Amino acid sequence: MTHTRTLRLDSGKTTNVMHVVGTELIVNINRSAPPQSKYFSVNGSPKVCYHIDPQPVDFAPRSPVPLVVNTVLLITLNEASQFENESKLSVQYYGEDLKKGDLKKAVLHITAVEISLDVDADRDGQVEKNNPKKGSWAWGPNGHGAILLVNCDSERTWWKKPDTEQDQISKVSDLKDMSQMKVRTRGPAKLPEGYALTMHISKGDAESARVFRDKSINTDGVHNTIKYLFSAFIQHYPLVLSSKDLSKEVPYLGGAAEMNFYVEGLRFPDKDFDGLITIHLSLLEPIVPGYPKTPIFTDTVVFRIAPWIMTPNTLRPIEVFVCSTKDNNQFLKEMTKLVQSNNLKLKVCYEYMNRGDRWMQDELEFGYIDSPHQRFPVVLDSPRDRGLKDFPYDVLLGPDFGYVTRMPEDGEVGSLDSFGNLEVSPPVVVNGKNYPLGRVLIGVAFPTAVQGRNMAQVVQDFLWAQKVQDPIALFSDWLAVGHVDEFMTFVPAPDRKGFRLLLASPDAGYKLFKGLQNDGHGQAKMFEGMESAEPITVDKILNNESLQDENIYVQSCIDWNRDLLKRELGLDDEDIIDVPILFKLVTGEDGEKLEEKRALAYYPDMVNMIVLGKSLGVPKPFGPQVNGRCVLEAEMCSLMEGLGLTCTFIDDFASYHQQMGEVHCGSNVRREPFDFKWWNLE
Amino acid sequence: MTHTRTLRLDSGKTTNVMHVVGTELIVNINRSAPPQSKYFSVNGSPKVCYHIDPQPVDFAPRSPVPLVVNTVLLITLNEASQFENESKLSVQYYGEDLKKGDLKKAVLHITAVEISLDVDADRDGQVEKNNPKKGSWAWGPNGHGAILLVNCDSERTWWKKPDTEQDQISKVSDLKDMSQMKVRTRGPAKLPEGYALTMHISKGDAESARVFRDKSINTDGVHNTIKYLFSAFIQHYPLVLSSKDLSKEVPYLGGAAEMNFYVEGLRFPDKDFDGLITIHLSLLEPIVPGYPKTPIFTDTVVFRIAPWIMTPNTLRPIEVFVCSTKDNNQFLKEMTKLVQSNNLKLKVCYEYMNRGDRWMQDELEFGYIDSPHQRFPVVLDSPRDRGLKDFPYDVLLGPDFGYVTRMPEDGEVGSLDSFGNLEVSPPVVVNGKNYPLGRVLIGVAFPTAVQGRNMAQVVQDFLWAQKVQDPIALFSDWLAVGHVDEFMTFVPAPDRKGFRLLLASPDAGYKLFKGLQNDGHGQAKMFEGMESAEPITVDKILNNESLQDENIYVQSCIDWNRDLLKRELGLDDEDIIDVPILFKLVTGEDGEKLEEKRALAYYPDMVNMIVLGKSLGVPKPFGPQVNGRCVLEAEMCSLMEGLGLTCTFIDDFASYHQQMGEVHCGSNVRREPFDFKWWNLE
Repeated sequence: MTHTRTLRLDSGKTTNVMHVVGTELIVNINRSAPPQSKYFSVNGSPKVCYHIDPQPVDFAPRSPVPLVVNTVLLITLNEASQFENESKLSVQYYGEDLKKGDLKKAVLHITAVEISLDVDADRDGQVEKNNPKKGSWAWGPNGHGAILLVNCDSERTWWKKPDTEQDQISKVSDLKDMSQMKVRTRGPAKLPEGYALTMHISKGDAESARVFRDKSINTDGVHNTIKYLFSAFIQHYPLVLSSKDLSKEVPYLGGAAEMNFYVEGLRFPDKDFDGLITIHLSLLEPIVPGYPKTPIFTDTVVFRIAPWIMTPNTLRPIEVFVCSTKDNNQFLKEMTKLVQSNNLKLKVCYEYMNRGDRWMQDELEFGYIDSPHQRFPVVLDSPRDRGLKDFPYDVLLGPDFGYVTRMPEDGEVGSLDSFGNLEVSPPVVVNGKNYPLGRVLIGVAFPTAVQGRNMAQVVQDFLWAQKVQDPIALFSDWLAVGHVDEFMTFVPAPDRKGFRLLLASPDAGYKLFKGLQNDGHGQAKMFEGMESAEPITVDKILNNESLQDENIYVQSCIDWNRDLLKRELGLDDEDIIDVPILFKLVTGEDGEKLEEKRALAYYPDMVNMIVLGKSLGVPKPFGPQVNGRCVLEAEMCSLMEGLGLTCTFIDDFASYHQQMGEVHCGSNVRREPFDFKWWNLE
Repeated sequence: MTHTRTLRLDSGKTTNVMHVVGTELIVNINRSAPPQSKYFSVNGSPKVCYHIDPQPVDFAPRSPVPLVVNTVLLITLNEASQFENESKLSVQYYGEDLKKGDLKKAVLHITAVEISLDVDADRDGQVEKNNPKKGSWAWGPNGHGAILLVNCDSERTWWKKPDTEQDQISKVSDLKDMSQMKVRTRGPAKLPEGYALTMHISKGDAESARVFRDKSINTDGVHNTIKYLFSAFIQHYPLVLSSKDLSKEVPYLGGAAEMNFYVEGLRFPDKDFDGLITIHLSLLEPIVPGYPKTPIFTDTVVFRIAPWIMTPNTLRPIEVFVCSTKDNNQFLKEMTKLVQSNNLKLKVCYEYMNRGDRWMQDELEFGYIDSPHQRFPVVLDSPRDRGLKDFPYDVLLGPDFGYVTRMPEDGEVGSLDSFGNLEVSPPVVVNGKNYPLGRVLIGVAFPTAVQGRNMAQVVQDFLWAQKVQDPIALFSDWLAVGHVDEFMTFVPAPDRKGFRLLLASPDAGYKLFKGLQNDGHGQAKMFEGMESAEPITVDKILNNESLQDENIYVQSCIDWNRDLLKRELGLDDEDIIDVPILFKLVTGEDGEKLEEKRALAYYPDMVNMIVLGKSLGVPKPFGPQVNGRCVLEAEMCSLMEGLGLTCTFIDDFASYHQQMGEVHCGSNVRREPFDFKWWNLE
């Protein structure tokens, strides 16, 4: 829609007018007509296009036509002026008797300029000129609207903090984390006296984004020698808009000019922020000396801040993180072998940094942010603050490695706030609805529970606000530790939906053990020959009625999640594999007062695995041996081999299992981002 | 989509199962099959429907079919059971050799119940049974989803406060401000041991709504004698869900039963609240004694809280409010006459209540809330707290008259927070988009202004969050008082869009005065014969060059708004009438430090009128007289008479105009609500 501006004519006077190419001026011919005017004629210089509405019969330039109520003159110019007041238009008024001579004449001297505030609204990495859709934002491959990253990495490696926390650009490498924005102008050498260009942003939006100007390129187009002197560098990229400065004049350079700006995102979408940022450029007109200037033209661009995206097990791993502690040497050795055999990098966090905290999964979640011009990993630091608490900030945050965290205001953090309780599914289609980035999964208490444990609301709000991986709340409060990774995981598959959901299954466990008993292996022992556990026969396990009751309860809790996962991920039973795991119920969990009994894996919980492509690192279950082979390992291998997956069983018994976690809890994997671009979501 | 629940079979055992009619049970036949099982057969009692997936070839009840991987049994019952364990289903397993005899059998004893949580999701004022769309909310005439009112009136007239502020129902009349909700059940006389029905709500939603139960009707359907003893009454409507109780058991009554609940809205949609409320009813199953119960069925209903809606000038007036002060006797007399001649009620707020504050428009805005079952007016109390500050609460709040307010946290209130700066347009269509409830209009500073005055953000957030009258921010900071009603109003019209926008126009004013001069009336005087103003001739006004400059500036400010209003309300120039008003610029405004000069009407500002149907109460302009008639009045009448409107000129000169306001500022009108229902918006 063309932007139309009302213009006043002053009969008997010459009015200087600024016109922005692409807009339209509307003049009410009647409004300033001298008294007794009955006719008028219009005359314009070559570049001026105009038409009269309602269109007079037999109209010709300069020839008088009757003045009727609400006659308007619409004026446009299709190119910028070379000099001030280049174009002219006059309206001549006449009285009743055309021969009696003219009444007063109103004259316009018009200066036309081209002005556009430009962004990469078509998402190709380039700032195109004056995209007609730049002022709004739409999802999808046919969508439009520019994209902004939260500049949450740290260019500095010394005295580091996220770049969002410093309001100056100290390294040229920081620029690529921001979105380019250009002011393009064309017109006379300078704007007429008193006119000014102003860039502005709302108070709300300025809390989430700011704008720097790029003065490193001289106005003559020659690149300045970048001085590595700190203060000089900052002068090249002055802060233009921020919450301290919502509006600032930007120079008009004259002729055909282009000025570069960089827009920096400051915070992720959240409960109170939908992620959209609007920036305006206005041309201000001095109406009367001494009175405020009026914006006569405003150009608007809209950005959406890129969401934080998680990476499911089906994405290619890049590096694996584990902790080294006093007592996990064996585990570390086996993990190293597994990781190296997959040609991946193993990153070990040593004791001085982990302070005895081995739960690498729980402290953080790896994700990334993406835009057409830049992409980098971002770690979400859990509010859980145990020994590893400084690791995400002190070790991971750095150049092109972002950091974000959410901490409950009251500082109260529980076991469900650990990120073993935060997972993401592979891409799914649910009742025709596409989730090409999968869906986030967290564990909470039953909504019906009077006193349940939950994930901190600030973290939930953050996850839900990212929108592109629409989260699902599972029920995990039945577990002593309370993490979803204790009963489920996803593994890649060559068929069907490209993956299988593995669920821990006491029923599958009992079925396996009953089969053993039936086949005469009732005296085979779990935990045989181990130092840290008492061996126990299959018969004894099957005869323990209270254990059976406990597992019926556990199975019902897992089934509840199974039904929910089937519904919310659009899964069939064929997409789910039941993994034989028994649980036991215990009272209390370290550090937390619990009155109800909650579940813990009876033997190493094989679903709590690490997935590295087709290679799975599975907690070694130490099940009963038949013909020299652990039947639990054999069952697991047989379940996985049909999918082309190989299991490596890792001994985490004393170092993790007996401390209420397993391989997955004790590791973390950074993965390749999705090929799918989040802005193409529909 | 049918809700499917995973059910465990236990071979060798009988399992009691609860089934909710309308859902489906899914049994993995393999999972609990005894070892060596190769075949199975199924047998069910008459009410049990089941099928096996994958469908076996040549299946007949009781005849064995091969057991294949992932064989599932889907079970449904189409009606509620008369007694516990009424229906039976058994799965018989067989080994390799069918003749060798049976392996163990799994038996299900099924009790079926019907459960639904019901609301008025089809918006006809009745709570229908189990509306399939009750769990979501959609706009439009084909939309669905129940509606909730904020119970912001006060049933009590003594010790009054909004009903939302008391968590008990003290009068039966309060019930009609709430939305009915029913729990409908059908089944055996009681639920099997340990099962329970629980109603629950999320923590966030409980801040915005709560639920009472109606125990006034006995379970046998006989109405209790309502005892007017306060405590007894409250016992009839106990609080069920609130932010203190997110989950509560509700009784299962047995047989075919219906239990009534009342849902009460507690707060309006706002920046942090989208207005949607979800309430659940779950059936809890005891899995194993001593462990938490599991929800096996959850029914969900969604409400949307009704927005606060403003009423434009084109709606039928009901009553007119004005203040009585020491010095406004003449004004009051003329207003009384105008209001009575329109057969309306005039409500006068006397000095003891207004404490000398005459600006009835500025203290409050009348609106209403609407639902299929109830509708009442709601006053929005301005954060402006001058003499009238207690009027909305103390006088207006009452039975079926609601109250809402928003106050900036820092308590800082400025002139733009007065509700002369809050108006609403008649219904419009803009580029094909329908606004059948019009659009809210407020005045703010230019977004480019470095130091501008604004309407308090909390009030803006409230207005924007109501959604149904999508607000437009105009530029009013150029006015000393800064209210949009100083330069614009809407009057009804028989043609075009059903209304005209009147805009104050200095150009129209100058045109009129120049015409007078031209016709030889340059010596005609404004303010002739008045005590409170110095008369001044037309010639003198026209010769005042600085006044002319000031009015050029004012016209440019109004034109800026004109262009915005045309765009945002979809208006043509023919929809706008320019009313001849001159302004002057002054420094400072009472109580506020102003450095810039701002505008004030030079003579009584005729657009600042009261609109009562076709009768307009217009500030008497005291313009120059020609042939014994004020030319400004004559012009106004001539502009309005084509629309069938009559002007009554009201002398507000000393009592309002000279105190920087006019008729509109000094009055308020409560109007009929729209016929259009807000939930039918698309």
